[in-house]
Amino acid sequence: MELKDKIRSIPDFPQKGIMFRDITTLLKDKEAYDELITSIAARLEGLDVDVVVGPEARGFVIGAPVAYAIHAGFVPARKPGKLPCKVRKCDYGLEYGTNTLEIHEDAIVKGQKVAIVDDLLATGGTALAAIKLIEEMGGEVVAAVFAIELNDLNGRKVLKDYNVKTIMNF
Amino acid sequence: MELKDKIRSIPDFPQKGIMFRDITTLLKDKEAYDELITSIAARLEGLDVDVVVGPEARGFVIGAPVAYAIHAGFVPARKPGKLPCKVRKCDYGLEYGTNTLEIHEDAIVKGQKVAIVDDLLATGGTALAAIKLIEEMGGEVVAAVFAIELNDLNGRKVLKDYNVKTIMNF
Repeated sequence: MELKDKIRSIPDFPQKGIMFRDITTLLKDKEAYDELITSIAARLEGLDVDVVVGPEARGFVIGAPVAYAIHAGFVPARKPGKLPCKVRKCDYGLEYGTNTLEIHEDAIVKGQKVAIVDDLLATGGTALAAIKLIEEMGGEVVAAVFAIELNDLNGRKVLKDYNVKTIMNF
Repeated sequence: MELKDKIRSIPDFPQKGIMFRDITTLLKDKEAYDELITSIAARLEGLDVDVVVGPEARGFVIGAPVAYAIHAGFVPARKPGKLPCKVRKCDYGLEYGTNTLEIHEDAIVKGQKVAIVDDLLATGGTALAAIKLIEEMGGEVVAAVFAIELNDLNGRKVLKDYNVKTIMNF
């Protein structure tokens, strides 16, 4: 199966000039969804991952099943005001606009091996914000795996000090 | 393991008078997370589920791994404006406030067997909105499974015509 064929491309969403890669057409296809999650899990084999961090909200849809598949815990990195306890936060730039990521400050224990899993590597801003928070808490980022990489946006350069894997390239 | 012990209870979040049940303490614990997802998957055994619908955002963290575990597709039910293609939408009441749920109108095919999976059964409003959308598209709701049920809010009564299962009761 060519997983890339399951992605729907939508011009000018959420704003003019952005070609949005819609993963919902892949998610709803049980064979494709299974293959995507299994492929990401395979990239993490042997890394002894304790927890997967997934950024809200599409990162949850990819990161949570990967955590289950590799028998790791899952830590949501959320938008501001969603987490009920004390958080660490980091502002970051997006392909369009800016945002803030929050993680519960007791979510990661010093020395834990952490994988970031998200749907999309664009500019790398979201992942870099997550890495900053994880490292502040003493976690070791052993991999960052993305379902989709947008080659032109050079996110891989921003994450050059980390073990980056991607499944589909656009 | 008593899964309930992994839930952290936080008074007055997100507003005064609400006792918030925080699942992040369960999610980050790999044994507890595995047990929760496996338990929900077991409740769906034999129902021949084609797709799992999970409401944004905590429903993604529970519903997506359940879909993977039972080898079903996953359909996100999202907050307004997040899905890039043509949607069906439904307004609903929450334990606090109101909201709107959207599903891509091509996400579910007539005759498909659908399970709703979410973190919390409170008033049942979110699940009922999802059910309405799924049934409008011709899907058959074969089960609604929740990690947590808040007994006092009587969500089960609202969903009395459906096959409702819950894992932890508060």
